[in-house]
Amino acid sequence: MQRSWVNSEEAPGSEPAGTGSDLHLELRGEGSLRNQLMQALRAAIDSGRLTPGTRLPPYRSLSVDLGIARNTVADAYAELVEEGWLAARQGAGTRVARRAVPLGPERLRGPARPTHRRTVHDLMPTSPDASAFPRTAWIAATRRALAAAPHDAFGVGDPRGRIELRRTLTEYLARVRGVRTAPDRIVVCSGFAHGLELLGKVLTGPVAVESYGLSFHREVLERAGRATVPLTVDSGGARIEELTGTGARAVLLTPAHQFPTGGPLHPERRAAVVDWARATGGILIEDDYDGEFRYDRRPVGAVQGLDPERIVYIGSASKSLSPALRLGWMVLPGWMVDEVLEAKGTREMWSGVTDQLTLAEFIGSGAYDRHLRRMRLVYRRRRDLLAARLAEQAPHIRVSGVAAGLHAVLELPKDTEEAALRAARRQGLALDGLRPYLHPDSSMTPRDGLVLGYGTPPDHAFSAALEALCLALPDPPQKERERKGRQEPPRRRGGAESP
Amino acid sequence: MQRSWVNSEEAPGSEPAGTGSDLHLELRGEGSLRNQLMQALRAAIDSGRLTPGTRLPPYRSLSVDLGIARNTVADAYAELVEEGWLAARQGAGTRVARRAVPLGPERLRGPARPTHRRTVHDLMPTSPDASAFPRTAWIAATRRALAAAPHDAFGVGDPRGRIELRRTLTEYLARVRGVRTAPDRIVVCSGFAHGLELLGKVLTGPVAVESYGLSFHREVLERAGRATVPLTVDSGGARIEELTGTGARAVLLTPAHQFPTGGPLHPERRAAVVDWARATGGILIEDDYDGEFRYDRRPVGAVQGLDPERIVYIGSASKSLSPALRLGWMVLPGWMVDEVLEAKGTREMWSGVTDQLTLAEFIGSGAYDRHLRRMRLVYRRRRDLLAARLAEQAPHIRVSGVAAGLHAVLELPKDTEEAALRAARRQGLALDGLRPYLHPDSSMTPRDGLVLGYGTPPDHAFSAALEALCLALPDPPQKERERKGRQEPPRRRGGAESP
Repeated sequence: MQRSWVNSEEAPGSEPAGTGSDLHLELRGEGSLRNQLMQALRAAIDSGRLTPGTRLPPYRSLSVDLGIARNTVADAYAELVEEGWLAARQGAGTRVARRAVPLGPERLRGPARPTHRRTVHDLMPTSPDASAFPRTAWIAATRRALAAAPHDAFGVGDPRGRIELRRTLTEYLARVRGVRTAPDRIVVCSGFAHGLELLGKVLTGPVAVESYGLSFHREVLERAGRATVPLTVDSGGARIEELTGTGARAVLLTPAHQFPTGGPLHPERRAAVVDWARATGGILIEDDYDGEFRYDRRPVGAVQGLDPERIVYIGSASKSLSPALRLGWMVLPGWMVDEVLEAKGTREMWSGVTDQLTLAEFIGSGAYDRHLRRMRLVYRRRRDLLAARLAEQAPHIRVSGVAAGLHAVLELPKDTEEAALRAARRQGLALDGLRPYLHPDSSMTPRDGLVLGYGTPPDHAFSAALEALCLALPDPPQKERERKGRQEPPRRRGGAESP
Repeated sequence: MQRSWVNSEEAPGSEPAGTGSDLHLELRGEGSLRNQLMQALRAAIDSGRLTPGTRLPPYRSLSVDLGIARNTVADAYAELVEEGWLAARQGAGTRVARRAVPLGPERLRGPARPTHRRTVHDLMPTSPDASAFPRTAWIAATRRALAAAPHDAFGVGDPRGRIELRRTLTEYLARVRGVRTAPDRIVVCSGFAHGLELLGKVLTGPVAVESYGLSFHREVLERAGRATVPLTVDSGGARIEELTGTGARAVLLTPAHQFPTGGPLHPERRAAVVDWARATGGILIEDDYDGEFRYDRRPVGAVQGLDPERIVYIGSASKSLSPALRLGWMVLPGWMVDEVLEAKGTREMWSGVTDQLTLAEFIGSGAYDRHLRRMRLVYRRRRDLLAARLAEQAPHIRVSGVAAGLHAVLELPKDTEEAALRAARRQGLALDGLRPYLHPDSSMTPRDGLVLGYGTPPDHAFSAALEALCLALPDPPQKERERKGRQEPPRRRGGAESP
């Protein structure tokens, strides 16, 4: 029993292995004996104990040694031959196939993932509080929705998405966002970027975008072959008049809450962009990413209501519920529906049916409204805490964009952004600088700032995150001057980092 | 009261409207009075009763007429100005903005959908029985999975998919399909086509495919810029030796059950394709679309186990549970993981978290095995019914590919496919011909046949579907000859359609 019947030095084609017990095969685990034998043989080949070319004992010997039926051994050999682990030649017995690779578990790891500096306080913008996902209400809605769904919900479905969700969204968006549409014009997608990707395939010509915006969105458009042209952003949002002469056939805006700088699009510009679309046959893509979160007054309705034939409205559950749901919706002009569906592909890539049915039930039952009311209170309290703490500890830092949404911009003195980001990382803070949001072709002078989300940290951790944030912010110019022991003009170029 | 204060003939800039009651505004519905007033004004503009340019009554008059506070009217006007419905100019009062489009509900329909001839019996291949989706067990798994999930499950997640699902799949696929992998090497996707699309972006050079296969899959590859090269398919599957000289760097196969012709890949060819991949640095893409459904014996394990470094295994829940879940999984060589994730995009397009968590729980709890056992019995019974009915009523038609899966190929006499499809449509049957599955560049002689799925119809409708199918099949050559009242060689070219 101590003798190993396979010697890895043996040449392929060596003598047949001795008795089955010499194979050190231990039959165990789940399933039939045949199954257990197959598992054991695979494991022996895997580990390298049985090397390629090795001849296996005849059925009879192994069946005797293991105390199992001869047919069981024959079946197991035959199956492993079919799977390619063993090879059988007439008259030459059964051998370990030459291509079965020994591959232990240690070789089965994926690539090493980069290790990031440990984040203690996640203030990255764009994410809601994951701990606030309304699990209980969501589970209850899933139960009701799946129990009530017709059988065909689990078949190959309508590429626009489930009709229950499209009907519910039609009513909901009309009531809450002033969107005017019909279920036939809504296409469910897996989030804003998916919708934008589909539009990128349908639109022609360059797409105008706000000079400040997510580089990720620009990349989605550019991958779809659409060049992006930046429009200046000021306190009234994007300057619509700059559209003329750009050659843009479409413009992507965040009218309810410019991302990231934070203001709503000025009413005259809302009108102007609709006029532009009508006059030129252009399209406005309205990114309503956080339209439901406005704290100091009722939200401004969507621009879409002003002209449903020239405006594509895109919303999602990513901020209101969770980005992990992968659920968004495009409200399209009627004439665009078929083109978007063709780009989407009629057979694949639409969102899962269970979440679509659940969200329809969740909205229809009023649970969504209740959740949003609760989250508005939570986020407003955090917004107020942020503003109060900064007013107290860093009164020289202007905070903007906090009337709505889940993020704020802290405006920094010129050329202090990079140092502030380094200081933030030392405090274990994850947040963004403002500069990466600026379109590389924009003629705007880059502003320094920090873009931080107050949605992500759970409630109990928020105060500590603010504490760390204040430690990372640059000193006021006065203090800075004092610290350096000499008088300098307040607006000079200067590092914000502590020595 | 009979006088309409707005006359649509009136030029913009006409006299201010009279009293509020003349506006025919009725305050009702949900929400605050301001909200109700805004809704009523929007509706009046929408319907065309209030035309662009029309001046609205001053706050005071309307507040008196409607019996509401003046501030409420002022707020409603201000909000509608912000939304772009109204325009306010200093000293000129508030008017209906020029761009508010009247757009009644009848104009808000989507495009007309093509109306198909009514399908009575859906025998399209590739879909399971939607009525057999295990709702109760799925709901229970959702409840357990969501209750147990950590908070971060609802945040921005790992682009590979939830770790719970990847761990469960690692064990499950090893046990049931002989797949050797690790959670780090699995990437969750929304189905086979999504996985193939991602691979299309990562691979270089042409991709060899089986001469018979889904044209849809060829299109996915071609859209990703990969030319496809057909391999001859015979009773042993694809002829691997033809890979040499094609320049292909990857080959897409359905080794467990060639789709649609139906056999497993011959063991020697399993070995040969692994040898090819090793010798050339090529990749085998293993489409294991119905590996769990084999009726007359234990399923053959996946080829992937033979060389996890050169084989990409793709499976999905589309056949086993429902195509509406949009859940699939790619098992990747370690060195490909990062490239696939880059193609996938680290921020978007992955599958929803609730179904991922639920499937992990569903598999882990044994509910998946139970469901598969039940469905194997259901589908095997249907397969047997199909075979028996055809043996009885159409013994001249050969049925192939029925040892596994959810579909069968009925082999037809030469040049009878089109007529048989027309006859099937007249019987209200939806099914496929075999010819569209043939790669356009294949040198194989096209075969005539019908590809039909027996998964889709619910149990109670299956017998009637078989009845209709038998009516649609071409007559046997003998009967055909008799019917035409003359003698012809049995293999002549002939229509299969009844007169």
